[in-house]
Amino acid sequence: MRSCYRHLLLCALSCLLLGRTAPADEGMWTFDNPPNKLLHERYGFTATPQWLDHVRLSSVRLNDGGSGSFVSPHGLLLTNHHVAIGQLQKNSTAEHDYVRDGFYAAIPDQEMKSPDLEVNVLVAMENVTQRVQNALKDITDAQKALAARKDVIAQITRESEQKTGLRSDVVTLYQGGEYWLYRYKKYTDVRIVFAQEQQIAYFGGDPDNFTYPRYDLDMALFRVYENGKPLETTNFLKWNAKGAGNGELVFVPGHPGSTSRLDTMAQLLQERDVRIPLILELLKSRLQTMHHYAARGPEQARQAEDLILSLENSAKAYQGIYQALLDKRVIAKKQTEEDQFRKLVASKPEWQSEFGGAWDTIAGAEAKAAPITKKLLFRRLDSQLASLALSLVQYVAEIKKPDGERLSGFHEAQLESLRYRLLSPAPIYPEMEQARLSGGLAESARQLGADDEFVKTVLDGRTSDALAAELVKGTQLADPKVRKALLEGGEAAVAASSDPMIALARKVDPLSRAITMWFEDNVQSVEQAAGEKLGKARFLAYGKSAYPDATFTLRLSYGTLKGFPMNGTKAPYKTTFYGLYDRAHSFDLSPPFDLPARYSEGIKKLDLATPLDFVSSCDVVGGNSGSPVINKNAELVGLIFDGNIESLAGDFIYDEETNRSVAVHSAAMIEALRKIYDAGKLADELEGVSH
Amino acid sequence: MRSCYRHLLLCALSCLLLGRTAPADEGMWTFDNPPNKLLHERYGFTATPQWLDHVRLSSVRLNDGGSGSFVSPHGLLLTNHHVAIGQLQKNSTAEHDYVRDGFYAAIPDQEMKSPDLEVNVLVAMENVTQRVQNALKDITDAQKALAARKDVIAQITRESEQKTGLRSDVVTLYQGGEYWLYRYKKYTDVRIVFAQEQQIAYFGGDPDNFTYPRYDLDMALFRVYENGKPLETTNFLKWNAKGAGNGELVFVPGHPGSTSRLDTMAQLLQERDVRIPLILELLKSRLQTMHHYAARGPEQARQAEDLILSLENSAKAYQGIYQALLDKRVIAKKQTEEDQFRKLVASKPEWQSEFGGAWDTIAGAEAKAAPITKKLLFRRLDSQLASLALSLVQYVAEIKKPDGERLSGFHEAQLESLRYRLLSPAPIYPEMEQARLSGGLAESARQLGADDEFVKTVLDGRTSDALAAELVKGTQLADPKVRKALLEGGEAAVAASSDPMIALARKVDPLSRAITMWFEDNVQSVEQAAGEKLGKARFLAYGKSAYPDATFTLRLSYGTLKGFPMNGTKAPYKTTFYGLYDRAHSFDLSPPFDLPARYSEGIKKLDLATPLDFVSSCDVVGGNSGSPVINKNAELVGLIFDGNIESLAGDFIYDEETNRSVAVHSAAMIEALRKIYDAGKLADELEGVSH
Repeated sequence: MRSCYRHLLLCALSCLLLGRTAPADEGMWTFDNPPNKLLHERYGFTATPQWLDHVRLSSVRLNDGGSGSFVSPHGLLLTNHHVAIGQLQKNSTAEHDYVRDGFYAAIPDQEMKSPDLEVNVLVAMENVTQRVQNALKDITDAQKALAARKDVIAQITRESEQKTGLRSDVVTLYQGGEYWLYRYKKYTDVRIVFAQEQQIAYFGGDPDNFTYPRYDLDMALFRVYENGKPLETTNFLKWNAKGAGNGELVFVPGHPGSTSRLDTMAQLLQERDVRIPLILELLKSRLQTMHHYAARGPEQARQAEDLILSLENSAKAYQGIYQALLDKRVIAKKQTEEDQFRKLVASKPEWQSEFGGAWDTIAGAEAKAAPITKKLLFRRLDSQLASLALSLVQYVAEIKKPDGERLSGFHEAQLESLRYRLLSPAPIYPEMEQARLSGGLAESARQLGADDEFVKTVLDGRTSDALAAELVKGTQLADPKVRKALLEGGEAAVAASSDPMIALARKVDPLSRAITMWFEDNVQSVEQAAGEKLGKARFLAYGKSAYPDATFTLRLSYGTLKGFPMNGTKAPYKTTFYGLYDRAHSFDLSPPFDLPARYSEGIKKLDLATPLDFVSSCDVVGGNSGSPVINKNAELVGLIFDGNIESLAGDFIYDEETNRSVAVHSAAMIEALRKIYDAGKLADELEGVSH
Repeated sequence: MRSCYRHLLLCALSCLLLGRTAPADEGMWTFDNPPNKLLHERYGFTATPQWLDHVRLSSVRLNDGGSGSFVSPHGLLLTNHHVAIGQLQKNSTAEHDYVRDGFYAAIPDQEMKSPDLEVNVLVAMENVTQRVQNALKDITDAQKALAARKDVIAQITRESEQKTGLRSDVVTLYQGGEYWLYRYKKYTDVRIVFAQEQQIAYFGGDPDNFTYPRYDLDMALFRVYENGKPLETTNFLKWNAKGAGNGELVFVPGHPGSTSRLDTMAQLLQERDVRIPLILELLKSRLQTMHHYAARGPEQARQAEDLILSLENSAKAYQGIYQALLDKRVIAKKQTEEDQFRKLVASKPEWQSEFGGAWDTIAGAEAKAAPITKKLLFRRLDSQLASLALSLVQYVAEIKKPDGERLSGFHEAQLESLRYRLLSPAPIYPEMEQARLSGGLAESARQLGADDEFVKTVLDGRTSDALAAELVKGTQLADPKVRKALLEGGEAAVAASSDPMIALARKVDPLSRAITMWFEDNVQSVEQAAGEKLGKARFLAYGKSAYPDATFTLRLSYGTLKGFPMNGTKAPYKTTFYGLYDRAHSFDLSPPFDLPARYSEGIKKLDLATPLDFVSSCDVVGGNSGSPVINKNAELVGLIFDGNIESLAGDFIYDEETNRSVAVHSAAMIEALRKIYDAGKLADELEGVSH
């Protein structure tokens, strides 16, 4: 308990040091604005432009929702098993379960293509704030401003794509305080080289997820190909198998998904009191459906596994975030921050008149949003086929409109990636689809009532079971060729289709659009305009000493390897293979603490004192999975795969005392490749050993 | 976080199930009232009288403040290293540090005598409630009742000692709802047979203290002698080296020190708001003094070690208790319990008129006590020599009075043990005494002010440094012979002594008496009388389905081996030797996570999957240290040495969801004795292997 006491004390002190500057090892910094002042003051380190360019070009985004890095001159890409799991799953069959059993291509010919993985490398960044803000000048109506913003952003991306042929995204930072055009080199020929057994990648399962101490080897290796050959590159991270020591400065370049650290109190309280409780109900219901389905047999269990893991992960994460928001300390700290910011704005009449109303505007929009949140969440069909159908129906309609008027997700710059996903050859399991559709509809009816327009429209007098059976049996959409024909046939083909899933999508589309439009007009546009004001005010008040909320774009975090107070004692900065065997035997080898055969049989080959996982104070969130941890020389010393339970508060607040990111140690990956998997050749490629 | 959520839910449910009956695995039951109904309902087990007698007679109390058990027919006594530490320390010198290095007597001649350890076995229990209550009949004045109670208790114990020659104590249970005469067989020839290195007994040190998962081998073995020969006995626990499995029913017979579970809200809030914060300040100041002293050199560090450990232990425990009392859930639960009890009492007019005023009476006494708490705590001298001097001064005066009128600690039945302690030949370190005296006085002056009567009387114009030097240099009391002469010389010898420590004790004595008497008259006697009323009311309201607060007398706890939700995940029900090496290497072998040489060198000899520690839901508190954990067949499967951090709330409340006692596994002790210490002979004696 001593540590708790210390924690309270530190909090009392840190509460005096507020404002939006980032003390401590906080922050997910954009590469145009690295925290060099903080780095120099705290660690005597400066990130040079060359260092930053090399790190940026060695980092990748995996559009399955994670990060990664190049780790050899021949296109080897390191990420997590749990980021690669979708592609492993899609290559698996009832005969070959690569998720469960792992995979290793000892020779290039065995490397296995990913059906629909897209990898992005951020090759250029351009500040387009002025152009966006010029387009919005003199527009006071929020809805018109939203449309004008969409329009100018669509123009910028289209121009960029035409000029460079690169994927181009305009990224909104600091709630609209800045707009940046990011250009990506895109790779889609990405082959699986290595993955271990799920049970060692995710040892400890859902209980250990989002916790530390941890004993997971959550890694996977892809190889990126270009023109049918392994990508040759000088932008890759050298492997440092020694790893980093206690207290050593490290960095995490990666793609944090989203945070709400700049949200107003009205937004936070809405999350806590309205949205998250409903999301938890949604996740619980979906998990229940999937557990029932998995219980039908081993093949069903295999099919369901990756979705169950993802749902459990979300449920635990939201539960953690919810707990953080129920913590009075967190709320008090956020309230103090907001009060100080409002006071600062109010201190200058010109600021007050321009920005001072933004908080109340947002609060008003949140009040409007509250009653329809349930509809936003439960007027959805839980099914891959139904999602594909709705996307097809909307795609053919949207692409005919001017870019700025389209639904989000259908802008010109997004179409190529969207088509790639719509035409993915990855398998779809009809029995599972049917279970999901039926379970999801029953829950929607329970939540929204039988008289809800969406529920009535979809069920049309049938039970959810009957409808799901009818749809899944009748649809041809599981075949990518059928989807391709509709996509190419355009509006006419989609309108003429008698596929029951398309027919349902045509009925659902207007309802879906109506609620989306209402939300955009009454909430999103209003909050975006007000948020932009706050973004500007924040720049004026605090300068660029802050970092923007996460946007699943490349960021740089920094920190040191260090333990933290936990459970009345100290969590160590690292764990070892000894701990893996301790935790397994402590639970009498019962799942999820069982050991794969290779590990129970291979124990004698391992040096058990080899570091396995480690924690650092680097500020990361979901989306950072698969990010490399690098040292000052930009050498790879670890692989981010999780955060501790305390880091779940990181959506709203960073606390250096306890917030930790969890990584696989570089030494553990080499030890396992060489001694457990007989993958010495791969280890040699990683370590740069020439033959 | 899932587990937290579950916890809140369970709490919400359990809050509906209150009252003073004991649901769950709660309770420290007296041997006359085992929880056979609960045991039968929950586990289909009944503790027979034979089983209870055997377990009781195999259990011992060590008057250094712990518990133990006989584990061989030849008097081997198992307890914790941390219970034996005082005796190990007292046998140590600058040349031989048995605390640090451990000790093993391979042959009987090497067994090492404990200077002043007293071991008690509870051989008889007699209910004397009627006799005590008769003596109090018709006395309404609280002070007179207190005196009358003391008097009748002194009579009962004196008669018993005269009749049986056994140590006899009258124990107050249920706040005076019952009085029991306990008779003990007493052993003082107790020799040290085995202890390991401190660093493995207390691996993880203060950080890991009161926490779990844990990796400590906290054991020591004494041999009890009678008439110069090893005690031959049939009352010992058979060793079961397999241990108990997950979920298995186990029992802990032992001596929980004290709990306050029956305290009123007024008493709890006084603890939280007045007493514990002051105790924490006292402990902090004493620890600071000792750390400074230990920093002077290795010999000073050795001398200070056992006191530092004990102070750190207390500080962490009080901090944990303090945290528990700051927890609104705990307070709310206690408040609900009290409200329900009061309501029940108020529901019958005759109960209300006899007992209904007791809560307010206690609240009134607490209000009086609050302002003098600081004096009670800081009007003390932090010194062994000063304590001995004050005991001598008071001893010679008290023994002349009728037993019932004496200060507590000086009753006839306590004198033999007191004399044993007063004449202990254990070493006293003058330099350390001086540091403690000086540091303690400085803190007393800081807390009480320079004008405080005690401070003025003691310092008498000198600085605390000067006074401490003068006293320690001048006194002869470190020599047990000098103390013996004073003890035997009686009042005259003490009055005539020019020893400066005795002279100071003569000046301090009246002040000490005055505050003790004031406290007894105004607080203790009032609360005792009112508490007795509540004890009676509790019997009437709830029957004997409850257990009394702990009193450092023999109790039986029960429960099962089971993990608990922790840190967002699950703590396992046991740990293994793998975990010891993991935690050591996770901290790069830095103290307090370093390994003794025998363990780093001996690793190859160990089966690392051997269970090391385990947790059970048995309800234990301080004083239970060294208690055996036994299975249904009364076989020894473990050795209690701690509780988890959540168990610190156990002073006030038991929560089956998270409260766990921590024990060394029977297999680990055998594995270490045989493979690390080459003590196969001792292991054979424990396992009953005949030669």
